[in-house]
Amino acid sequence: MNGADAIVASLAKNGIDMCFANPGTTELALVDALDRTAGIRSVLGLFEGVCTGAADGYARMLGRPAATLLHLGPGFANGVANLHNARRARSPILNLIGDHATWHLPFDAPLTSDIRSLAMPVSGHYAYLGTAQLCVEDTMRALGASKGGKISTVVIPTDVQEHVFGEQPEVPQLPHPGVATCDGERVEAAARVLRDRKPAIILLGARAMTSSGQKAAAAVAALIGARVFAETFPARWDRGGDTPVIPRFPYFPEMGMATLKDAECVLLVGARAPIAYFGKTGLPSELVRPGTHVETLAGPGDDAEQAIMSLARALGAAPLPPCAVSVPPLPEHGHRLDASVMAQTVAALMPGRAIVAVEGATTTPVFFTAAAAARPHTVLTNTGGAIGQGMPVATGAALACPDRPVLSLQGDGSAAYTIQALWTQAREGLNVVTILCANKSYGVLRVELGRAGMNPDAPVPHRMTSLDDPALDWVGLARGFGVPAARAHTAGDLAGLVRTALSQGGPFLIEAVMS
Amino acid sequence: MNGADAIVASLAKNGIDMCFANPGTTELALVDALDRTAGIRSVLGLFEGVCTGAADGYARMLGRPAATLLHLGPGFANGVANLHNARRARSPILNLIGDHATWHLPFDAPLTSDIRSLAMPVSGHYAYLGTAQLCVEDTMRALGASKGGKISTVVIPTDVQEHVFGEQPEVPQLPHPGVATCDGERVEAAARVLRDRKPAIILLGARAMTSSGQKAAAAVAALIGARVFAETFPARWDRGGDTPVIPRFPYFPEMGMATLKDAECVLLVGARAPIAYFGKTGLPSELVRPGTHVETLAGPGDDAEQAIMSLARALGAAPLPPCAVSVPPLPEHGHRLDASVMAQTVAALMPGRAIVAVEGATTTPVFFTAAAAARPHTVLTNTGGAIGQGMPVATGAALACPDRPVLSLQGDGSAAYTIQALWTQAREGLNVVTILCANKSYGVLRVELGRAGMNPDAPVPHRMTSLDDPALDWVGLARGFGVPAARAHTAGDLAGLVRTALSQGGPFLIEAVMS
Repeated sequence: MNGADAIVASLAKNGIDMCFANPGTTELALVDALDRTAGIRSVLGLFEGVCTGAADGYARMLGRPAATLLHLGPGFANGVANLHNARRARSPILNLIGDHATWHLPFDAPLTSDIRSLAMPVSGHYAYLGTAQLCVEDTMRALGASKGGKISTVVIPTDVQEHVFGEQPEVPQLPHPGVATCDGERVEAAARVLRDRKPAIILLGARAMTSSGQKAAAAVAALIGARVFAETFPARWDRGGDTPVIPRFPYFPEMGMATLKDAECVLLVGARAPIAYFGKTGLPSELVRPGTHVETLAGPGDDAEQAIMSLARALGAAPLPPCAVSVPPLPEHGHRLDASVMAQTVAALMPGRAIVAVEGATTTPVFFTAAAAARPHTVLTNTGGAIGQGMPVATGAALACPDRPVLSLQGDGSAAYTIQALWTQAREGLNVVTILCANKSYGVLRVELGRAGMNPDAPVPHRMTSLDDPALDWVGLARGFGVPAARAHTAGDLAGLVRTALSQGGPFLIEAVMS
Repeated sequence: MNGADAIVASLAKNGIDMCFANPGTTELALVDALDRTAGIRSVLGLFEGVCTGAADGYARMLGRPAATLLHLGPGFANGVANLHNARRARSPILNLIGDHATWHLPFDAPLTSDIRSLAMPVSGHYAYLGTAQLCVEDTMRALGASKGGKISTVVIPTDVQEHVFGEQPEVPQLPHPGVATCDGERVEAAARVLRDRKPAIILLGARAMTSSGQKAAAAVAALIGARVFAETFPARWDRGGDTPVIPRFPYFPEMGMATLKDAECVLLVGARAPIAYFGKTGLPSELVRPGTHVETLAGPGDDAEQAIMSLARALGAAPLPPCAVSVPPLPEHGHRLDASVMAQTVAALMPGRAIVAVEGATTTPVFFTAAAAARPHTVLTNTGGAIGQGMPVATGAALACPDRPVLSLQGDGSAAYTIQALWTQAREGLNVVTILCANKSYGVLRVELGRAGMNPDAPVPHRMTSLDDPALDWVGLARGFGVPAARAHTAGDLAGLVRTALSQGGPFLIEAVMS
């Protein structure tokens, strides 16, 4: 048994069952150990951002970390953008990175770099495993941190991986981590604030976004006449079915401020206090106006579901009658596709228990409205704003929940960043149907140029925000990666393709040509 | 005139004429400024690694920096791998990154991250432009550092970009930077060592890899009976035509040690002393055996071409008769494609003045042998080992030298990392012919597994190193990005396609199916 075996065995014994890998020469002993160790599935990505995004999707669905296996500093750096998103989603992930042998590091070989400096901005826990004798202990500490909700990054030199143990190191069993629960005082304080300061806005986020959490929030709101909103970019949001319809807090700061304008208090339940996504001259960063009372019932890392349920009980808020499913009608077949027609078609056809990964700043938000009362489903959004998140997260979610259909609503601009995810979907035969919304532009940048008083059609802004010269052939690209694909121009095309893709299983990409 | 205008105008005035951009909301004022400023061409990449790799290729060909325009920490992180390669190539680059408004930063909006920590491992100079009044001065300092051979990274908050100046800030003109020349004492010392310690090995790198540098080295070697090698991964290597044939120093450490075994001295001319690419148990990091004298005539940042020419003069080494072009014959038409047949075909058909970007650890190295005496050409290699470098570097080189044909010899595994480069080649109509060597595996990892005594065909190692399930359809992928493409199975197919692609101009991809 060598260091790599010991590390991998410790992970397998402590609940790691998935490794999203893009290994290189410095990770080969770990690859070999993964071969000798039962219980961990190794899934290859052609690009590291696919691996880290998939680990994010996996964690969001199962609430526990997968491992990634990445190659030195540059390989890790390719995964940073989706780790940034994962950090914002509070997804636990355990990154394993191979490194040069400890004795080789001082020679500054070509692939040497400062991995720690690259890792710290996205890692809640970092460890350099410089000593074979401590490698299991250090790995378990990192896994423990990860199970507690963090991204842990562990750098393992090749000599530590290859170190042969005289005696097999003991593999500890980690205790199950708890989640901070909400104490009675906070519940009482929240109840007091809601009674005293009306009207109130309840802002839900993180763990409060379960069906139970939203039902409790809706009951509280009905009792005291408050309004409930969901944070703008939830990591995981259970919706539809009998879950109450709760709107998203607006993205644009002007609209957020208008929403909050009349509130006497804002109760935070798993969400942070609303701030502007980007600072805009003339508008404040904090959208809650001065004087409005902000009360935190539960922070993003707390058990916000339990907190809001406790609050409902404390207030004596009776459960509301369950919401009825109200699937929107299919748009007329001949309709040209736009964002609304796309969203309505998907909402109409989406089967119960679907997972929907949503990325695409101008083409996909309307889905939240269209599907608000559709069959029960779980939405995963882009939590950190680093685009190229949707397809990898959909990939990881499909691996986490093989019995649930996954829909990936994807803007074309963002899809181009991590398009390699399609290959992993093909290779693993995942039930992911991608609706690729091809509006041939970075639409949100064109909107933001306009908002800032700049002309999106001036030559350089136009050239930097348009994707039509040449247009990407998404059907060809998907097929090139091994995913069957077809193009939809009308609502009828799209409905037919969504039906077929869902019924046949496996991955499929539909290029929804937006007019 | 606002801050963005002032910054962009200062760059245009000081020789920046190209900006490889993938902007987001925090860079829009800079995009707008690029529209108002003459002299800088903005080229969009669909992924940041394309932008940074293209800037590397541009710098290697022209010896001066291009700018990149990247979106906050995550966007920058996507460009880190190719900045790592650029740092190893000593390519000057000026990275411009937008950031949240200074007053918005403390609120930790979703896209906020520690940009500095991400940037430092690949930046020789870093600046946060927190004050509008100093933004031109700080930018010019960064550009100065970049012109001196560094990667400079400049973070520009949106409020600094948007700051309106009452008075137009003065735009300085930077002095032209010099390159450290080689003093007479070092030349004399080198001459003495070469005379006293025979046999000698001369190892060329960096600026010594010009035709003149190699001619001078060959003359010196002939005079004193030394052997000359090129560093293993040169940033830019002029070859063929009348340039002497100089072999590459071997990649594998065992072979490197064998090469050096009998040498009494190693003279470094722009190269670093040879070290193992990866540390391997039982082998040393430093490949020069103890007792061998190592003499540095010129470091990688010095004017090594001038140094070796001075040494030749000091020794009285007469120029050798110019080498004759010896183009290899075309392989027989019916040959199945393998690395040798591919290399020989390309070497045979490659026109004079071609630029050849080479990436693909097992499929492309034979090109160096096959093309050693071919028509004059310039080779660009993967300097830092972060794969996904070849296609972006080819893209930047083609923009730098629109009158030279660019051949991109590319392994399939590495091509998948930054495949989006093809779109920029299509959009800009670049003369890049990609020979995509499809061996459907991470071949070098299979070799390294075997070298380490592990079985590349065990289930997990096989699964993590094979790319055949499903096979990537590179013709479909290229066409999907707008690049015409075709598949070659035989030497005859390949030769025909290379001829056609070169004669028609513009981008083309040939999938060379390796048997």
